[in-house]
Amino acid sequence: MQMSFDHNAFRVHEGEKVNLSKRPTFADPLYSSKTHCKDMLAEHVEQLSKLQDIHYADNRYSVLLVFQAMDAAGKDSIIRHVMSGVNPQGCQVFSFKHPSAEELEHDFLWRSYLCLPERGRIGIFNRSYYEEVLIVRVHPEILNGQRIPHELINGEKVWSNRYESIVDMEHHLHRNGTRIVKFFLHLSREEQRKRFLERIDEPSKNWKFSVSDVEERKYWKEYMAAYEECLSLTSTKHAPWYIVPADDKANARLIVSHLILHALSELSLSYPAADEQRKKELADIRQKLMEEKGE
Amino acid sequence: MQMSFDHNAFRVHEGEKVNLSKRPTFADPLYSSKTHCKDMLAEHVEQLSKLQDIHYADNRYSVLLVFQAMDAAGKDSIIRHVMSGVNPQGCQVFSFKHPSAEELEHDFLWRSYLCLPERGRIGIFNRSYYEEVLIVRVHPEILNGQRIPHELINGEKVWSNRYESIVDMEHHLHRNGTRIVKFFLHLSREEQRKRFLERIDEPSKNWKFSVSDVEERKYWKEYMAAYEECLSLTSTKHAPWYIVPADDKANARLIVSHLILHALSELSLSYPAADEQRKKELADIRQKLMEEKGE
Repeated sequence: MQMSFDHNAFRVHEGEKVNLSKRPTFADPLYSSKTHCKDMLAEHVEQLSKLQDIHYADNRYSVLLVFQAMDAAGKDSIIRHVMSGVNPQGCQVFSFKHPSAEELEHDFLWRSYLCLPERGRIGIFNRSYYEEVLIVRVHPEILNGQRIPHELINGEKVWSNRYESIVDMEHHLHRNGTRIVKFFLHLSREEQRKRFLERIDEPSKNWKFSVSDVEERKYWKEYMAAYEECLSLTSTKHAPWYIVPADDKANARLIVSHLILHALSELSLSYPAADEQRKKELADIRQKLMEEKGE
Repeated sequence: MQMSFDHNAFRVHEGEKVNLSKRPTFADPLYSSKTHCKDMLAEHVEQLSKLQDIHYADNRYSVLLVFQAMDAAGKDSIIRHVMSGVNPQGCQVFSFKHPSAEELEHDFLWRSYLCLPERGRIGIFNRSYYEEVLIVRVHPEILNGQRIPHELINGEKVWSNRYESIVDMEHHLHRNGTRIVKFFLHLSREEQRKRFLERIDEPSKNWKFSVSDVEERKYWKEYMAAYEECLSLTSTKHAPWYIVPADDKANARLIVSHLILHALSELSLSYPAADEQRKKELADIRQKLMEEKGE
């Protein structure tokens, strides 16, 4: 028994101007109790695992899931809870950190391109090329380290150029069989503060914590502005953004698993069927194997 | 409650001359009932997931699991059952098929090198560089397609050279923090025949089936001879082979999960501890975050 779920409630519709202060960081729970939540997530994971099995066999589409958020919004934990249980053979997670020297020799999409999921797989980007219009926008001095010819990054046009590059690439990928779903985990500044304190106090978590995480809190407004423009201009029919209220971790997991299931169920997936020639071939092999019995 | 498990019973000891006809393809079940089996595997997967979490945080060692076997021995299914449940963020599976034109431009280890697991990760090779002394040995004409200078592959020495290259590479990786565990799933020819028939009869499985799989059955003896020499000459203290009886799928999963747990538990893993300077740093941040409350 599931509560009704409306994926449209979380979607950024093409052309919509996003105002994050009007988007909740806390949504009505989809679950009625802890047990209900656990059971529902387990059910989603099982369905996801089954769909991914067919997706792998079908081997025509690729699925790319992009996760973006402020620190401590729960990207890692959502990936772990929703995607553990899925066959790792069909699932690839890439975390994008500071670009390497080699990566900086190339354009800003290059390193992501190398990590795009193969057909039949689910690729997960934990952070992504979107950082190029988020952290880089909030700290434009990073651009100077990217060795782009100066005349090409002078002025504000660099950001609209980057949005265009991203939208065009995603459109190209869609035309060639990649289905892209993008999640922004929407966390409140106060909830981030609480989670940072938890991390500091918990020895099995505090290795994750870095001073720079706290430094970035100072730029919260700038980040929200960068996210708002980014979500508004890069959510398309073919590669939509979903804004997931993230203050309640358990609920966020359920929303994300719902949305991934929704995306997979929209693909026309099936186990490859045998045509007449193939059927005959299989029948011949069957016969041969049956005759082997006495060998 | 677990039955006693002796990992040494499955190990190929350094210098041991393997005779596969004396190694069972069917072992005493580690489980007493289907439910017991399911519960035990679930427990192993949970332990594995916890250990991998620490391994990921520890971020010093890499773990490489190599799976080799005849077709239908259950590689894919074991990887799915044992490794689903583990955070895909810390787990990478690579299936090695026919080398591409680009891969053939390089030496036979090159393409595997590109896929080696990063520190803190578990890498899984579904087939591996070992194919180079297995299928290539059974069908030496493949060597001619590898564009190696002819004078370098003339005669039998090519195989001992390849063993040497493999052992040396594995030793090098061990010295630098990669822990390698190798599994040969030992299937009987008769059980393979049964599983092929099942695949043919099951529409959700028969897409997996190819005529060439049956063709390879003709070379069973040659494959066993190639495996015997390979297992004998490449099982080292630092990168051991385990021969896993594979006729009972459920039992094989339990044996493999036991062996992986054993390997992980031998690493000295821990969450990175905070030193005095780090503790002070965290305390300062804690203070700042507490003061923010009223903002």
